[in-house]
Amino acid sequence: MDGIAPFKLLVSREEALNILLNSIKPIDRTELIPIERAVGRVLAKDLVANMDIPPFDRAAVDGYAVRAEDTYGASEFNPRILRLVGVLRAGESTGRRLGSGECIRIATGCPIPPGADAVVMAEFTEERGEEVLVYKPVHPQENVSPKGEDIKRGEVVLREGEVLTPAKIGVFAALGLRKAPVYQRPKVAVIPTGFEVKEHGFALEDGHVYDINSYTLAAVLMENGATVTRAPVIPDSYEMLKWALHKYLDHDMIVFSGGSSVGERDLLAKVILEEGKLLFHGVQIKPGKPTLFGLVNDKPVLGMPGYPASCLSNAHIFLIPAVRKMARLPPKKLTVVRAKMARRFVSSTGREQFLTVKIVDGRVYPVFKKSGDITSLSKADGYIMLPVNLDVINEGDEVEVILFE
Amino acid sequence: MDGIAPFKLLVSREEALNILLNSIKPIDRTELIPIERAVGRVLAKDLVANMDIPPFDRAAVDGYAVRAEDTYGASEFNPRILRLVGVLRAGESTGRRLGSGECIRIATGCPIPPGADAVVMAEFTEERGEEVLVYKPVHPQENVSPKGEDIKRGEVVLREGEVLTPAKIGVFAALGLRKAPVYQRPKVAVIPTGFEVKEHGFALEDGHVYDINSYTLAAVLMENGATVTRAPVIPDSYEMLKWALHKYLDHDMIVFSGGSSVGERDLLAKVILEEGKLLFHGVQIKPGKPTLFGLVNDKPVLGMPGYPASCLSNAHIFLIPAVRKMARLPPKKLTVVRAKMARRFVSSTGREQFLTVKIVDGRVYPVFKKSGDITSLSKADGYIMLPVNLDVINEGDEVEVILFE
Repeated sequence: MDGIAPFKLLVSREEALNILLNSIKPIDRTELIPIERAVGRVLAKDLVANMDIPPFDRAAVDGYAVRAEDTYGASEFNPRILRLVGVLRAGESTGRRLGSGECIRIATGCPIPPGADAVVMAEFTEERGEEVLVYKPVHPQENVSPKGEDIKRGEVVLREGEVLTPAKIGVFAALGLRKAPVYQRPKVAVIPTGFEVKEHGFALEDGHVYDINSYTLAAVLMENGATVTRAPVIPDSYEMLKWALHKYLDHDMIVFSGGSSVGERDLLAKVILEEGKLLFHGVQIKPGKPTLFGLVNDKPVLGMPGYPASCLSNAHIFLIPAVRKMARLPPKKLTVVRAKMARRFVSSTGREQFLTVKIVDGRVYPVFKKSGDITSLSKADGYIMLPVNLDVINEGDEVEVILFE
Repeated sequence: MDGIAPFKLLVSREEALNILLNSIKPIDRTELIPIERAVGRVLAKDLVANMDIPPFDRAAVDGYAVRAEDTYGASEFNPRILRLVGVLRAGESTGRRLGSGECIRIATGCPIPPGADAVVMAEFTEERGEEVLVYKPVHPQENVSPKGEDIKRGEVVLREGEVLTPAKIGVFAALGLRKAPVYQRPKVAVIPTGFEVKEHGFALEDGHVYDINSYTLAAVLMENGATVTRAPVIPDSYEMLKWALHKYLDHDMIVFSGGSSVGERDLLAKVILEEGKLLFHGVQIKPGKPTLFGLVNDKPVLGMPGYPASCLSNAHIFLIPAVRKMARLPPKKLTVVRAKMARRFVSSTGREQFLTVKIVDGRVYPVFKKSGDITSLSKADGYIMLPVNLDVINEGDEVEVILFE
C-alpha cells in the first residue's frame, strides 16, 4: 500500500460534508436520567401524560367559591349576600358540598368544593363576619381552572426527539416524573498524534510542542453533546495508529488529530484503507486540506489536520455537524453578522477559504495569522467562508461573518 | 407589619430590571480548574504567555532546510544542486550547522537547523541519493514560522473577563498550562414554597400539585452559569420563610418561587422588609405581576410567581439577566425572528405582556393558555413582548418573536 498518493481523494467541502453526514448514524442507545440534569438532552420516547394537570378543578384567583347563579344580578349598589361556610387556605381541600346561598373563602390553587362552580375575586366582595357581600356576578366556570386544562391524562405532551428545555423539564416535574428517558450522548475518542507533540506536565524538549488539539476538539465535542475520551498522544507510526484505532473502536466516533507532515497523514490513511473504508482524503479548503474520513467496523473515523488552527476550523466545518447529527441535536445555530470589509483581501488558493476575522467599529479585518497559529482563532470574532472561485474581496464589500460563540 | 398592601411597590418591567441589575455584584471569588472543563467559564486573570509559540523557528512545510542564497537562480530548467546532509522527521531536531551548498530534509514542525534560513517545499525538489535538486528559489525566512510568531513570551494573550472558548482553551494548552483561573459560578438557592406544593416521590393528596418551579428555575440557572441548590418545599408561613431565608443566606442569591395567593406573597415581602430591604413588590407585567425583589445582608432575594408559566417567563425577563451579570457572562444572545401574526390578538391588561407563540408556516399564533399552564411555554416556539399601551395586534402585523432555545 505504499503507492497512496497524498490527497488522492480530494473533494470539495460540500462533498466532504455530505459523505461524512451520510455515514453518521444517530445514537439509538437511551438512558433514564434525573430531570434536573436533563436540560439540553434529547427525549428518547414520547411523553404520555400519566395524570391530569391540574389534577382537579381549581381556583384561579383568591376569592370565594360560589354557585354562579347565586351571584346573578349582583352590582356595586346591589350586592348579593352569601353565607360564609368555610375557608380553604393554600393546600387545603374540603368535601363539604356548597348549598344554595353559601360560599367558601378559597385561595388560588385550591380545589373547587363540590357544589360550587365559580370563584368571585376577592376584589369584588366584602366579608362581614358570617356574611360575604358580592358586588359582581360570575358565570359558571369563571375563575376556575378545570381539571386537565393544562395537560390531559393520556395526551402526548412531549415528542421523541425534542431537545429538553427548562419548560419541558417542567412538564416532567408537573407529572411527578423524576427521570427522563433520553438518548445517550455519543462517546467520542480524541487521539492526538505526532512524534513532536508532548503531553502536558512534561518539560518540552527541543523541537517539541504541547498537545493543543485534543483539548480544543474535546471542548468543541462537549459543547455539542458528546462525551469525550482524550487519549494520550500517540506517535505517528503505522503500528501505533492501528493499535490506537482498535483500542478506541468501542467509541461511537474516533477523531485523530495531527500529524502535520504529508508522510504522517498518509500513515493514518493507510491504516484506515486497510482496516476499513477510506471515504475521502483531502478537502479543497484552506486551511484544513489534510482532513480525511473513513469507516472502520462501521464507526466513523476522522483525521483532522495537525495544525491547531486548521484542526479547529475544520472542527467547525465538519466535526460539529457530524457530532450533532449523532447526538440527534439540531444543527448548531450560527450567528451571522453582515458587515463591510475594512481592507482588501486577496485569495488565490483555488480552495474554499475559512478566513478568521475581527470586527472593529463594525468593519471586518482579516486576522492575518498562519494556519499553525492557535491565536488566529482565539483572537478572532468569527470567520467568513470565501468561495473557491473568489479572487479578491475589496474594501467596502459586504461579507457575512459567522461569529464564534 | 400587617398593613402591607399587595403590590405596594409596583414598578414597570424596565424599572424592575434596573433595580435588580443595579443590586447585583459580579462574583469576585476565583478558582483554578482543569482546562478541559473550562469552556464557557470566565477568565479571572490576564493570561501572560510564559513562553514563545512556536518555541523555536520551525518548518512550515515538508521539504528541505537550506540557506536561501544557495537556491538563488534555481529554475525548472536549471536546478541548483545541494548536498543532503541529514533528515529531520517529526519530533526530531539537530545541532548540525548547515554549511554552504548543504541541505537537510525536514518535516513540517521541526526546528530549522542552525545555519539554515529557509525551507524549499518538497514539490519543488527532487531527491537523488545524496543530492537534492532544487527547482525554485526561496527567500530568507520562506516557509519558516519564526519563534514567537503565534504567541510572544510576555504577551497578554487572553484578558481577564473573556469567556473561554475552545480556541482560548487551546491557548492554555499551547503554553503547557493545564489549569485556568476562572471566576466561580454564582451559588444560587432555589426555594419552592407553598402548602399545596409537594415534593416528587410522594403521592399527591387532594388539592396538592407537584413542585415544578424549582426544577425549571434550576435548569434556567444552570444554563446561565450558576450552580444551584434546590431546597425542599417550604410551607408558606412567616416563620418557615424566615428560617429558609437565613438557612440559605450563605448562597450568592436566593430565589423563592410561589405562593400563588396574595396572602402568601405578602408573607415573603414581610420577611424581606423586616430582615433587609424590599426594593420592589409587583411588576406591571402579564403574567408575572407577583414578582418581588429585595436585599438581605446584601444578598439579592427574588420572589418569583408561583404559577409555573409566570415563574418561568419572569425567569427569562429577570433571573437570566441577573444571574449572568453575577456570573460575569455577557447578556444572553436572543434569537429574534420577524414574522406576521396569523390572527388578531387583543391585549387589554394595562401591563406589558409576555405572550408565548408558535410559528407555523412562518406565521405567528398565540399559544392560548393560562398563566398557570406549564404547557404555555413547553409548547411555544418563543414569545413576543407587547408594550403596555398596545391594545390590539392585527392579523398580518409584523412582530418580533424571541425564540426559546
